[in-house]
Amino acid sequence: MNEATAPSRQRAAQRHQPRPKRILVVCAHPEPRSLTAALTAFAVEHLRAAGHEVRVSDLYAMKWKATVDADDFPGHTADRRLRVAAASEQDTLAGRLAPDITAEQEKLLWSDAVILQFPMWWFSAPAILKGWIDRVFTNGFGYGPALPPPYGDGALTGRRALLSVTAGARESAFSDRGIHGRLSDVLHPLQHGLFWFTGMAPLEPFAVYDANELPAERFAAAREAYGRRLDGLFTDEPVPFRPLAGGDYGRDMRLLPDVEAPGTNGLDLHVRPRR
Amino acid sequence: MNEATAPSRQRAAQRHQPRPKRILVVCAHPEPRSLTAALTAFAVEHLRAAGHEVRVSDLYAMKWKATVDADDFPGHTADRRLRVAAASEQDTLAGRLAPDITAEQEKLLWSDAVILQFPMWWFSAPAILKGWIDRVFTNGFGYGPALPPPYGDGALTGRRALLSVTAGARESAFSDRGIHGRLSDVLHPLQHGLFWFTGMAPLEPFAVYDANELPAERFAAAREAYGRRLDGLFTDEPVPFRPLAGGDYGRDMRLLPDVEAPGTNGLDLHVRPRR
Repeated sequence: MNEATAPSRQRAAQRHQPRPKRILVVCAHPEPRSLTAALTAFAVEHLRAAGHEVRVSDLYAMKWKATVDADDFPGHTADRRLRVAAASEQDTLAGRLAPDITAEQEKLLWSDAVILQFPMWWFSAPAILKGWIDRVFTNGFGYGPALPPPYGDGALTGRRALLSVTAGARESAFSDRGIHGRLSDVLHPLQHGLFWFTGMAPLEPFAVYDANELPAERFAAAREAYGRRLDGLFTDEPVPFRPLAGGDYGRDMRLLPDVEAPGTNGLDLHVRPRR
Repeated sequence: MNEATAPSRQRAAQRHQPRPKRILVVCAHPEPRSLTAALTAFAVEHLRAAGHEVRVSDLYAMKWKATVDADDFPGHTADRRLRVAAASEQDTLAGRLAPDITAEQEKLLWSDAVILQFPMWWFSAPAILKGWIDRVFTNGFGYGPALPPPYGDGALTGRRALLSVTAGARESAFSDRGIHGRLSDVLHPLQHGLFWFTGMAPLEPFAVYDANELPAERFAAAREAYGRRLDGLFTDEPVPFRPLAGGDYGRDMRLLPDVEAPGTNGLDLHVRPRR
């Protein structure tokens, strides 16, 4: 190998090596010996073994404050009525939010992918995780007049997002005809309303069903399935939600007539047909 | 009027007089001067003027603890792994839950109707309200093996439930083709997953759209519209969700084939066609 080609061959080799990615895992369970904690630990180990950098926000361990209030907005004075959206925007743009909020925003900006790991309580995230969303995704950070419009090119564009949930119910109850509602419909506020709204690319959720008192062999199977999903974190096809700015929606934010395949309705309207 | 007919005419008059109802209003906003607080105050005043009894759980004023943890379950010892569903059931049946939880359960049992009043943050309830749901609807109270099966004849059967929400978005964005998703679909986890699951009869949600910086004349209109909904609290038709035990679902909790009108799918599967 002569001097002239060695650096270019090295650069070529580097180009074939995927650059390590940065993943933020946010988990929500009060018990360090829980299934949620075990799946979190597994994800961290699995992703680091693949060469990625991983940070974890263990909300219960952090004693995360779940409730939005005036303490989040140091710029707000108590005599004035607290208008959350306005105070949020003002203090975000002025860079003076409460420090725990700023720390989480920095982790999100650092990340290439975000995983939310939680037990489904009443068909949604535990309150501490909802509180992470409420407090961190401020006006001016998660959305806002100075940012691109939502749904497709938002503040956190270019990142992937995965919901990893555990449920006591059987899979059939969350299937297309299951009484709880199809899992993707139940998780719409997070998949579409949070991830896609802020410009992240949501993957199909990963779920462990029948998760109370999970026997060891089913935990091993769940871990294996989760490992495959983690391997596909940056290569799997995201859910093809329609962008707001793509021409499918009118100025009133309603889907234009006849855009959808005949017979499509409900939340499916907002998903492009998969080819 | 002779003696023999006077008591029966009195009883007949009493039968025509509706008995006063009991309504629990749960509200979630940090600011006492907020729209949420104003709508709550209006509802309380309007319902009391109609002769009903009203109790209010103002979660921020109560400094409601939003996070489920071992402190909720005095029967749980720290050395053991906290299995939330099991600890919840054990302490509910033993009558030894944390006192703030028990107080809310008593209000629910006292009530004939429950109203949740909140600003929609990220297409769902603020964390403090999710925390009221997570902590109050324990295993053994909101559901459980000793209670009727969910969806139609649950623990809180016979009560009506109303979501009263405010949203910054325009109504069109939450319409049938609106990008946020149809409001009833976005609110599915509460309407179907909480209210219907526990046996309450959910009414159509009441919403105030474009609610940031609401001008006085629109607030007056919103109040009038809300007053009409409150007047119908005990007479309006609830959303006709399908009961689990009604014969529409199989043992796997999936809707049986051909139960629905042709072309129905998604979350609409779980609503009986309105006649």
